[in-house]
Amino acid sequence: MNGVELQDGEFERVNGEFLNRIFKLLLQDAVIKGTDIHSKLEEFEQPEKLFTQLDFELRDKGEDDDILIELCRNTIKYCVKTGHPHFFNQLYSGYDPYGLAGAWLTDALNTSQYTFEVAPVFTLMEATVFKRMREAIGYENGEGDGIFCPGGSVSNMYGISLARFQRFPNVKEEGMHGLPKLCIFTSQQSHYSLLKGVSFMGIGTKYLIKVACDARGKMDPVALEKAIIAAKDQGLYPLMVNATAATTVVGAYDPFNAIADICEKYSLWMHVDAAWGGGVLMSRKHRSLMAGVERCDSMAWNPHKMMGTPLQCAVFLTKHKNLLNACHSASARYLFQQDKNYDVSYDTGDKSVQCGRKVDVFKLWLMWKAKGNIGFEKEINNAFEKSSYLANKLRETPGFRLVYDQPECTNVCFWYIPPRLRGQEETPEWWADLGKVAPVIKQRMMEKGSLLIGYQPLEEKPNFFRMVISNLKTTQESMDFVVSEIELLGKDL
Amino acid sequence: MNGVELQDGEFERVNGEFLNRIFKLLLQDAVIKGTDIHSKLEEFEQPEKLFTQLDFELRDKGEDDDILIELCRNTIKYCVKTGHPHFFNQLYSGYDPYGLAGAWLTDALNTSQYTFEVAPVFTLMEATVFKRMREAIGYENGEGDGIFCPGGSVSNMYGISLARFQRFPNVKEEGMHGLPKLCIFTSQQSHYSLLKGVSFMGIGTKYLIKVACDARGKMDPVALEKAIIAAKDQGLYPLMVNATAATTVVGAYDPFNAIADICEKYSLWMHVDAAWGGGVLMSRKHRSLMAGVERCDSMAWNPHKMMGTPLQCAVFLTKHKNLLNACHSASARYLFQQDKNYDVSYDTGDKSVQCGRKVDVFKLWLMWKAKGNIGFEKEINNAFEKSSYLANKLRETPGFRLVYDQPECTNVCFWYIPPRLRGQEETPEWWADLGKVAPVIKQRMMEKGSLLIGYQPLEEKPNFFRMVISNLKTTQESMDFVVSEIELLGKDL
Repeated sequence: MNGVELQDGEFERVNGEFLNRIFKLLLQDAVIKGTDIHSKLEEFEQPEKLFTQLDFELRDKGEDDDILIELCRNTIKYCVKTGHPHFFNQLYSGYDPYGLAGAWLTDALNTSQYTFEVAPVFTLMEATVFKRMREAIGYENGEGDGIFCPGGSVSNMYGISLARFQRFPNVKEEGMHGLPKLCIFTSQQSHYSLLKGVSFMGIGTKYLIKVACDARGKMDPVALEKAIIAAKDQGLYPLMVNATAATTVVGAYDPFNAIADICEKYSLWMHVDAAWGGGVLMSRKHRSLMAGVERCDSMAWNPHKMMGTPLQCAVFLTKHKNLLNACHSASARYLFQQDKNYDVSYDTGDKSVQCGRKVDVFKLWLMWKAKGNIGFEKEINNAFEKSSYLANKLRETPGFRLVYDQPECTNVCFWYIPPRLRGQEETPEWWADLGKVAPVIKQRMMEKGSLLIGYQPLEEKPNFFRMVISNLKTTQESMDFVVSEIELLGKDL
Repeated sequence: MNGVELQDGEFERVNGEFLNRIFKLLLQDAVIKGTDIHSKLEEFEQPEKLFTQLDFELRDKGEDDDILIELCRNTIKYCVKTGHPHFFNQLYSGYDPYGLAGAWLTDALNTSQYTFEVAPVFTLMEATVFKRMREAIGYENGEGDGIFCPGGSVSNMYGISLARFQRFPNVKEEGMHGLPKLCIFTSQQSHYSLLKGVSFMGIGTKYLIKVACDARGKMDPVALEKAIIAAKDQGLYPLMVNATAATTVVGAYDPFNAIADICEKYSLWMHVDAAWGGGVLMSRKHRSLMAGVERCDSMAWNPHKMMGTPLQCAVFLTKHKNLLNACHSASARYLFQQDKNYDVSYDTGDKSVQCGRKVDVFKLWLMWKAKGNIGFEKEINNAFEKSSYLANKLRETPGFRLVYDQPECTNVCFWYIPPRLRGQEETPEWWADLGKVAPVIKQRMMEKGSLLIGYQPLEEKPNFFRMVISNLKTTQESMDFVVSEIELLGKDL
């Protein structure tokens, strides 16, 4: 009962003792130990083995609290600690006490975001946050609309949905029948969610036209214009360009002004997938990477990536007022009653293609309150500084080679070349051999639990590490550790 | 630092003091007070007023912890307490300590569900839970596939997606072009998500054919067969029937065996929207309401509704193995590397149309461990008992009238007829007058903060209350309170 003063029976009524024990366990094992640089990042077990390490099975009879606490302890033990200072594996990572507190509060209040009636505070928080984010994009007076989505993939689908509806409002009723063959342009290095989106939405992956990138991974606007003209020549109907604000692997920002010019010239909807790199809009130093985005029609921006908010926190924003509602509304009479006792324009749920919708705003709002604009800016600047530091270090350290000399975002892509492969002619066989290095080092990282970094091939380039700094509080020491640890784990390969 | 023993500096490093304060606040204000029958369910304020009650604004500078705690306290104050014993407004409600603990643990570990690599434990939990849920449906040997979705609306879209892909695998690449005009059948009283789904997925709302219901709100299978034949005659291609396991408003279960017969006869995919009522599969006493569902191709089942799991917890299940992956995969090489050090069939993310995906399984799994099958069964049986009790009471209490004499699910729909309107001829004007009663009582409930129940019109029936018992621990006293409170709030109308 530590620290909570209550009336008789109240603590027992809500099983407060169990919550107290869970809180202590989470604080100790998940938060303190999970973010401790001296603790292991994971206890890797093969799936078949892990099945036997924890009692997963569901039975007729329930277990008592002691056993449940042990199950929770073991769950934490075998989980990957994404808040660990050496976790660089995904576009999300790091730990923020305000973000976590915000998520916990949201859970404790367990409501859905569809109506002001059941989410009054969160509805107004959404309006506040969206306004501020639209201002950051540079939309005129911060006007427009927005909605939280369950991830950037869905946000990108919303871009396609609005683009299609704006041009062909009948699509809502008639579907794709009778429409010309719509096509969408995106760069070769853009995120795979576009592919999933056009498939799910009935457009077809064949009509997602991949535009060539320049050597740095940015969409080539000359190639874009050619592709639009070629598509028209083939009888297709160019609908939308998806520009990317920091590609998933190499972190390239597309040339937004050049793309906006082309979109205007050919009357295409301009959507920006800024799921990963949108956070730079918070930094006066780095926001020029996104110069021109204020011209876009819509944007996907995930604060759970470059703003360090806990998962999930993904926002779709558009400069067009009322289009979300017109496009997606179904006017359900049991939920969006028009004879309520408040201004029903505050019921935002009908803008969504979901019905019940998890409250994702509070953790972001609380972090924003805690840090202010300036706090976010400092942390994002820190991530950029550390990625520059790392790139410099890799450039100077024998055995490392950058895939791109200057990282644009905080993705730092590099090969580690073990001593055995150094100083040799770089034949196709040599490259194939090099491509086998990263998976082995990765396996060793996982088994040791010391570090986690992703790797992948890209086009003709064999497997290389993609180090992503999405942990905004990362340090120079962690960068140094990455280099020394990879050397340690890979020098014999 | 109450109750947590740590090494020097560790507690400060993670801002443990703030987390401690938040935990105490949540336990005291959200959990204990929020579920206390003697506390107010809400402090209603009009949106314009609420904007001034809480400092929503985001500024350059951050706030200190004391201010943040106060903001959290006020957020809780003005939130609707969905765990309050008198909250009956939505298909989710109630409070479960294991569910809440599970949600908190999930937040503290902040990971995404796409790969075994970053979600090893949760991946195996998903497999365990899906198997058990498929067994509950009655699929042979519990075989098939499944995926967590961000809500039942998306699960219903998955049903459409698989149905379309199974029949027309080229749709993935070619889109809807060249396909016949697909149509989908669903009952007039089915959930609006079907409407949103067919629009979003390029099929068109015109091709969602609404099948008439019988007097009790169940799909009429004779009308269904007629509608299929009529659609074929018009040159449409019948693709799928969506059957509903407890309709949103009146809680009707469609006749699954009769629908399955028709689906077999005409080779249609059978999807069951059991988002709300799927929980009865856990009850030996009530699962016969879903007799025949084992014949369905796919099902949407939301444990966050009739199983009391915190939001969001929504599962899509199908008897077809491998179809989810074939339909939705994009094989992103940066995430689903094939040269990993474990069996990559454990990476489930490519089955989804999302990329990052919130971990929704743990809270359900922990609740299941705590209660066992029998615990869920008891709680669900309790909700059914209490709804019968309420229906009986309403039948006997002057001034109340049931919309349907026997509730089938735990939805209890009724009108309250104030003394002024009793004993009169029930002319159209009388009904119109009656339809104005519920919104006023609702407004009074909200202002008083004593009770929350939804109302809506349905077809020709004017506004009536839809009392939903999704709080599985509800009591007879709460049922009595509903009746007396509505009388108290409405007798002068």
